[in-house]
Amino acid sequence: MPLSVAENSEKISIDRDTENLFLHVRNQTEILSNGLSAEDQCVQATAYTSPTKWHLAHTTWFFETFILKPELKHYEEFNPDFNFLFNSYYEQIGERHARDMRGLLTRPSIDEVYAYRSHINKSMLTYLHRGLDDGKLGLLDLGINHEQQHQELILTDIKYTLSCNPINPIYNAAEPWEASPNHEREWMRFDGGLTQIGADGKTFAFDCESPRHKTWLEPYKLASHPVTNLDYMEFIRDGGYQKPELWLSDGWSECCNSNWKAPLYWEQKGDEWVLFTLSGLRPINLNTPVCHISYFEADAYARWAGCRLPTEAEWENAAQTCQISGNFLESCAYHPLPSTKIGLNQMFGDVWEWTASPFIPYHGFKIAKGAVGEYNGKFMSGQMVLRGGSCATPQSHIRPTYRNFFYPPDRWQFSGLRLAK
Amino acid sequence: MPLSVAENSEKISIDRDTENLFLHVRNQTEILSNGLSAEDQCVQATAYTSPTKWHLAHTTWFFETFILKPELKHYEEFNPDFNFLFNSYYEQIGERHARDMRGLLTRPSIDEVYAYRSHINKSMLTYLHRGLDDGKLGLLDLGINHEQQHQELILTDIKYTLSCNPINPIYNAAEPWEASPNHEREWMRFDGGLTQIGADGKTFAFDCESPRHKTWLEPYKLASHPVTNLDYMEFIRDGGYQKPELWLSDGWSECCNSNWKAPLYWEQKGDEWVLFTLSGLRPINLNTPVCHISYFEADAYARWAGCRLPTEAEWENAAQTCQISGNFLESCAYHPLPSTKIGLNQMFGDVWEWTASPFIPYHGFKIAKGAVGEYNGKFMSGQMVLRGGSCATPQSHIRPTYRNFFYPPDRWQFSGLRLAK
Amino acid sequence: MPLSVAENSEKISIDRDTENLFLHVRNQTEILSNGLSAEDQCVQATAYTSPTKWHLAHTTWFFETFILKPELKHYEEFNPDFNFLFNSYYEQIGERHARDMRGLLTRPSIDEVYAYRSHINKSMLTYLHRGLDDGKLGLLDLGINHEQQHQELILTDIKYTLSCNPINPIYNAAEPWEASPNHEREWMRFDGGLTQIGADGKTFAFDCESPRHKTWLEPYKLASHPVTNLDYMEFIRDGGYQKPELWLSDGWSECCNSNWKAPLYWEQKGDEWVLFTLSGLRPINLNTPVCHISYFEADAYARWAGCRLPTEAEWENAAQTCQISGNFLESCAYHPLPSTKIGLNQMFGDVWEWTASPFIPYHGFKIAKGAVGEYNGKFMSGQMVLRGGSCATPQSHIRPTYRNFFYPPDRWQFSGLRLAK
Amino acid sequence: MPLSVAENSEKISIDRDTENLFLHVRNQTEILSNGLSAEDQCVQATAYTSPTKWHLAHTTWFFETFILKPELKHYEEFNPDFNFLFNSYYEQIGERHARDMRGLLTRPSIDEVYAYRSHINKSMLTYLHRGLDDGKLGLLDLGINHEQQHQELILTDIKYTLSCNPINPIYNAAEPWEASPNHEREWMRFDGGLTQIGADGKTFAFDCESPRHKTWLEPYKLASHPVTNLDYMEFIRDGGYQKPELWLSDGWSECCNSNWKAPLYWEQKGDEWVLFTLSGLRPINLNTPVCHISYFEADAYARWAGCRLPTEAEWENAAQTCQISGNFLESCAYHPLPSTKIGLNQMFGDVWEWTASPFIPYHGFKIAKGAVGEYNGKFMSGQMVLRGGSCATPQSHIRPTYRNFFYPPDRWQFSGLRLAK
Repeated sequence: MPLSVAENSEKISIDRDTENLFLHVRNQTEILSNGLSAEDQCVQATAYTSPTKWHLAHTTWFFETFILKPELKHYEEFNPDFNFLFNSYYEQIGERHARDMRGLLTRPSIDEVYAYRSHINKSMLTYLHRGLDDGKLGLLDLGINHEQQHQELILTDIKYTLSCNPINPIYNAAEPWEASPNHEREWMRFDGGLTQIGADGKTFAFDCESPRHKTWLEPYKLASHPVTNLDYMEFIRDGGYQKPELWLSDGWSECCNSNWKAPLYWEQKGDEWVLFTLSGLRPINLNTPVCHISYFEADAYARWAGCRLPTEAEWENAAQTCQISGNFLESCAYHPLPSTKIGLNQMFGDVWEWTASPFIPYHGFKIAKGAVGEYNGKFMSGQMVLRGGSCATPQSHIRPTYRNFFYPPDRWQFSGLRLAK
Repeated sequence: MPLSVAENSEKISIDRDTENLFLHVRNQTEILSNGLSAEDQCVQATAYTSPTKWHLAHTTWFFETFILKPELKHYEEFNPDFNFLFNSYYEQIGERHARDMRGLLTRPSIDEVYAYRSHINKSMLTYLHRGLDDGKLGLLDLGINHEQQHQELILTDIKYTLSCNPINPIYNAAEPWEASPNHEREWMRFDGGLTQIGADGKTFAFDCESPRHKTWLEPYKLASHPVTNLDYMEFIRDGGYQKPELWLSDGWSECCNSNWKAPLYWEQKGDEWVLFTLSGLRPINLNTPVCHISYFEADAYARWAGCRLPTEAEWENAAQTCQISGNFLESCAYHPLPSTKIGLNQMFGDVWEWTASPFIPYHGFKIAKGAVGEYNGKFMSGQMVLRGGSCATPQSHIRPTYRNFFYPPDRWQFSGLRLAK
Repeated sequence: MPLSVAENSEKISIDRDTENLFLHVRNQTEILSNGLSAEDQCVQATAYTSPTKWHLAHTTWFFETFILKPELKHYEEFNPDFNFLFNSYYEQIGERHARDMRGLLTRPSIDEVYAYRSHINKSMLTYLHRGLDDGKLGLLDLGINHEQQHQELILTDIKYTLSCNPINPIYNAAEPWEASPNHEREWMRFDGGLTQIGADGKTFAFDCESPRHKTWLEPYKLASHPVTNLDYMEFIRDGGYQKPELWLSDGWSECCNSNWKAPLYWEQKGDEWVLFTLSGLRPINLNTPVCHISYFEADAYARWAGCRLPTEAEWENAAQTCQISGNFLESCAYHPLPSTKIGLNQMFGDVWEWTASPFIPYHGFKIAKGAVGEYNGKFMSGQMVLRGGSCATPQSHIRPTYRNFFYPPDRWQFSGLRLAK
Repeated sequence: MPLSVAENSEKISIDRDTENLFLHVRNQTEILSNGLSAEDQCVQATAYTSPTKWHLAHTTWFFETFILKPELKHYEEFNPDFNFLFNSYYEQIGERHARDMRGLLTRPSIDEVYAYRSHINKSMLTYLHRGLDDGKLGLLDLGINHEQQHQELILTDIKYTLSCNPINPIYNAAEPWEASPNHEREWMRFDGGLTQIGADGKTFAFDCESPRHKTWLEPYKLASHPVTNLDYMEFIRDGGYQKPELWLSDGWSECCNSNWKAPLYWEQKGDEWVLFTLSGLRPINLNTPVCHISYFEADAYARWAGCRLPTEAEWENAAQTCQISGNFLESCAYHPLPSTKIGLNQMFGDVWEWTASPFIPYHGFKIAKGAVGEYNGKFMSGQMVLRGGSCATPQSHIRPTYRNFFYPPDRWQFSGLRLAK
């Protein structure tokens, strides 16, 4: 939620670009579901993933609930059951369907959900054409960014779902990986000092990125690119998964209880490791960033390497000068690619980078009034910040101040790490 | 498994009736899936139910595994993955897909499963036309009866699945229930003595129904028809679900832990009870047999009524003179109907009747050699016998010696009770 | 509960023997706790075992609740809290302390519990000296037999508790085991026919042993003595714990989930097996009956051996002619001993023998009125009958009609098996 | 672990004060166990508490393992089993007894554990009299401080244990609480700026308190004293436990799942709340700091009050000028007392104050070599920092830089909160 949006209520007309952005994002979501059958889009493999169909409907419900119902005169609700079925976690909106039962919603059908999307799109265009209050621009931006977040989740969730099928289904076909040269890790030095991080409110940012505030940084170094599969394999070969002294205590419990031996989606076939990807089972490309590791694994790897994870302030301070380009959702690889540059690179795209920072409020953070206040603020305990976006993040969605967050044991996102000293 | 089938290996030609029966049963299964979408047929609501698609494939796998692969020369396997995916519990056939993960098999698609069914049907006709060894007739009968069992499960499982959807989907539309007169319970008297129960091997029966053997019965009485919703409501109103002294100890724990207040699928709307049925949410018909109760509830009800459950020997002894007619799968009601006769009636169809008998081997029971030996024998602990078939049982599938079995807390079958003294 | 006790209410005077029996049994219980520290007697290792102190108090509560409070005029309750603390499972007596929290009752202290015992003993003597109603004799017998049951549980529960201590504490010191000759198994033949089993009500028996009733038995054979450790080791060596085809389905799940490799208390030290016993860790005596096995293991062993378990009717029919002598609690071995006789032997004592019979009511069984009706009847589901008593059973407590019962996976009793054909 | 201790190895002689401190602390621990029976000291109520006996032994094992075995020539181990039994979580020391099984160690007896303590005390005196390497002084300090931490745990763990007993046992008798005036909350203002926090290494501090480092603070205010029971009751009356919008998402789940309605140890008797304390069940003293609340409750309360929790840097910055005096272990109240001063007070003692800061390493934190490195560092995930000590903390153990840490749902410590803005 942008904090800078003025509270006056003059109608402002939405320009063509905003409308196009809205339609583009809505369309992009549907493109992601194109290759999937109704069955693929319906099931739920575990409580923390959601069916594609649910994502398609929930992002639509968001516009209906936070914009159309309160703002569009004479708006007619598409289906009154949907408020119960497709509310994710907004307590202030009312009762909702249990999160771990989303996969049992064989009805409404995928066709009905598409009709729902279409209905909402049309109503949104009506709403946008009427012009909207300046104060509501933030909600439109929020809805668009919210949908982009779910685009990434559609990919990570369907990947998890398909991985549970012993026949290793393919989401999108891909070329074999070409050999690529291994780039040596360089150490990039930063001076630190009394710096500023956080969103300044001039462009859209989530509430949790605000306010921009001072923080003290000691001098530090960052690795030029993320840890690669090649790097990580040495950790495995050196017994990294068998040495409690490398792990946080909770991490070691998780490692033992979940019987971790490698990142998620790695499978040992004889002497070799193969990977389950959105293009099915594939051999490992050694020079791509390691991916689908938990915070606990990232932390253990860093300790093993005699380094540490960067804090989010260190990361953001370094990222402020980087260009936002790289391997995003739009490149349709849906998998990280090797580093091909020298100097600080791959800060954006490819893999989310676990930081050493718990997801807590910035000094001066204020929760927004009403149900949208539940967007980020209530998750500020027990999770760690990841930075930089991944191969499943839309390019226009990411920025240096962006704070993603997941629980320390979570592995189903495209999550990797970059070393710091 | 019939024990009487001679072991000589002269080829015998299958008559038209057998072939027709095979095709009829195979077709009947598909009819049951007709009204369901690909999504409906894919998901799994709980570990003990299976997706429709899985039932369609598993029954097909049964013919492929136990007949076509060992018996049909040059038979070409449809898809080698299917042996892993669609084996239910046959340890001797090899590793299999985890039971509680069946709902994640979005692939193969429902169309592929239909193609599998078609491939197997054609191969089975080839096999049947060649004539078959006398000793293999039993396997054909077993496969047909196996598929009929899964027809019932398709209905009970999809009912459970749809019931998990808050919008109460309808499987098949139904007329409103007409009022019907309430029949008074009469007590039918039986002399007992040294009687015989069990299958004599002259017609098909499952292995667990054999051998026919002597058992001593004291004189006993059976109620003329099953306990009705009207009867059961009095138990509820009298606090039956709040009085531990009416319950078995394990039943009381289950009742408290699962927060039972009424049979499965009963829902209180204000002062009234409604039922979830395969025709959606409906008011209660008071004169139909109570249904979807566990053994624990059946036992508690009987104790409350000052009666008891019949033993399976008592039930079978009484049933030997009854005609097999009534409300079965074929009537497409998919719900029990009221008693309309006097004298001993509704012994077959409408609801399975919980007996007081644990499912244990008859004296002299022998487990068949090979994997089909796992069909029934290994389940002979912890389960209770039910008798008589239900509104979801194919009529040709049931007989007086038939022993169905479920765990004492199970409620998702069409299970009711008949009182005894 | 004896069903034959006349309901007239003339006071009858209790003879010296009855009083002595009461005092003897009460004293015997305390002797069992003598070697244990206050700490040993306080803790609870798992929900299904109870602390010694709790047994000492609960058996006392039984006399207070069922005899002294209702029958002894001017009886003064020892401590009103105790009715809550020491009620085991009698719903009709009121709320009670959670079963799995018994080990947290550090107060009352063991000394207070001894004072409680003493108070109740004195009051009971007062009560007995006044003479008692004929109809109450059954309650006295019940209380005495109840306490004897808990004597066995004191031993089996403390054995389990001490086994959880890595330093292998010793309950009572024992001599090294002498070598003994291995007796060959003989097969004893019985004719069966229309026989009678069950208690006839002339002497004390629990309610579940009644009524005596007819049952039909086909001819059968029993092994002369229980399966020995030597026999059982062959089963282990032959991979018995790795072959699902030998197991009931629920048994195989339990075996896998609990990672069973041998009976409870067996530990592999290098190439050898040792046993944890009430005399600490000891080498295995090959000729003693195998012990601390579940029903599932007994059943799998019997299947492996090409035999089966006897039914309880077969066992009782055979036992009716045997003398009740052998290795009981009184011999203070607290461990089974080798067979030293030929012919049918060790039917009583040494190890409880799992039968093939679920614990269900005999035809005509009636639950007693009031809370004592909860003694056995409400446990009649999901458990299997064991017969014959063990090395931890008081000799005067056992009889041919005695029905003990435990769940199929239970292993902490002195439970073994005898083969049948 | 102090980082400042010089690494030269000249023997230095320990002065009388150090020896006295050692003996005083060792003796203090035993005093805490005086009023408890052997039974009280043996049991374990939940996995996260430990028996008193275990604390007595484990603190002793610490000196034996980290000082006597490596440092004292000819030291003879008291009992080789104890290294397995009384290691808490030091992976590098080897295998250890399962944490949740500590309550089953009825042997060694409490007397043996006291003998162990005595043996170690004697050996430690021998060691201290010989003089010790300068580099080992830190280990001695660590052992002493470690034992002081366990003194607090002895009190909080026995409180939890006794609370599980329905008869509400008393640990130490106490006078009735006198009425005391309610102090109004004042707001104390702090300027912030570029400040320093953390231990400077001149006196003993745990490793996690180091290094002293710069941090930027915006201006902030702290409440003059902690939130009281009176304050907290308003939150309860206002429906604080029923309003999800006040809670962190994980906190709300915990609140619902654990059915929280009030702080731990509060019990509603009719219209009134009573408290379980170490002096048994008592009425609530309204002016004492609220206590036994989780981080989630502290956070929800602060949000309800329109304030927030202080960060640990804010707290430490404010505490640097406060005198360390107040209600500690030594006052033997074992319960918080009302504020009696004006201005910033009760920063030390009474209740630990939850801060908004996750327990993570300070910039530049180094884990010590060897097993003592496991002391704090491996717990740096998922826990929150608490500051200031409590009524169960020894006075000499606390300091402004002290960082205590527990999981957000933990409630069995004497934990409260102070508001910030």
